[in-house]
Amino acid sequence: MITLSPIGTVQNIRKAVEDDNWGRIVSVVELEASFREEALFQIEEFSHAEIIYYFHLVEAGKIETGARHPRNNMDWPRVGIFAQRGKNRPNRLGATIVKIIKREGNQLFVQGLDAIDGTPVLDIKPVMREFLPREEVRQPEWATELMKSYW
Amino acid sequence: MITLSPIGTVQNIRKAVEDDNWGRIVSVVELEASFREEALFQIEEFSHAEIIYYFHLVEAGKIETGARHPRNNMDWPRVGIFAQRGKNRPNRLGATIVKIIKREGNQLFVQGLDAIDGTPVLDIKPVMREFLPREEVRQPEWATELMKSYW
Repeated sequence: MITLSPIGTVQNIRKAVEDDNWGRIVSVVELEASFREEALFQIEEFSHAEIIYYFHLVEAGKIETGARHPRNNMDWPRVGIFAQRGKNRPNRLGATIVKIIKREGNQLFVQGLDAIDGTPVLDIKPVMREFLPREEVRQPEWATELMKSYW
Repeated sequence: MITLSPIGTVQNIRKAVEDDNWGRIVSVVELEASFREEALFQIEEFSHAEIIYYFHLVEAGKIETGARHPRNNMDWPRVGIFAQRGKNRPNRLGATIVKIIKREGNQLFVQGLDAIDGTPVLDIKPVMREFLPREEVRQPEWATELMKSYW
């Protein structure tokens, strides 16, 4: 077993779990008081960061360990939980690349974080070009359809 | 506190911790026996996946919670631990986009995973185009330099 401790919390206007329309949401990731603000020093030199967070509202009994239709939409194929990004997944980890707006002390302001208010944050990583795919990205049609109203 | 359980393990030829030259390394991520292989069903419809893993060899006493020079290289600026991707970080999480080569049963073969043999894996997510940065990526010069021999 691996034990983690939140490094911060998400603050935004999304209080309820929703599937779509995350693109314009501005969130503040506020570091826990145990961190000095220098832990974020110079992050604004990057345009984007990846936020790794914990889907804290997902109940243990709802976690899928096999395969299912994404969003339970029967029009889409039944695919493995590791072949989709749904929240009801083992370890309940979310990972999303966001746009950095600004930093103020121990608060990082970001746009496009698909996590609701109160979500525990486990890590913040700067996005480097070299960590993005170095070959053309290919994905199934259902994924493109699912993402149509996401941002 | 948040408790996680590895969903799989990395197998590859890298037995020791090294900084660079990860690009050609082929790794197998083998799911834990508690998962049915259908958890990976249809992942090969995607060209890339993101692997979230745990830097299990990092000692608690070596974790940086403030700022430091990346790779302790004094030629580079002192930046916050959340403004760099080094392994000595709170919660010891790694997250890397890899190329999917193939799947065989409960084994996923990938290229470009920067994790050594025996590393515990916490999640596998398919890469969707829509989850990549939707604006131009900007990064400081030190990051571009650091990444020169990484892959």
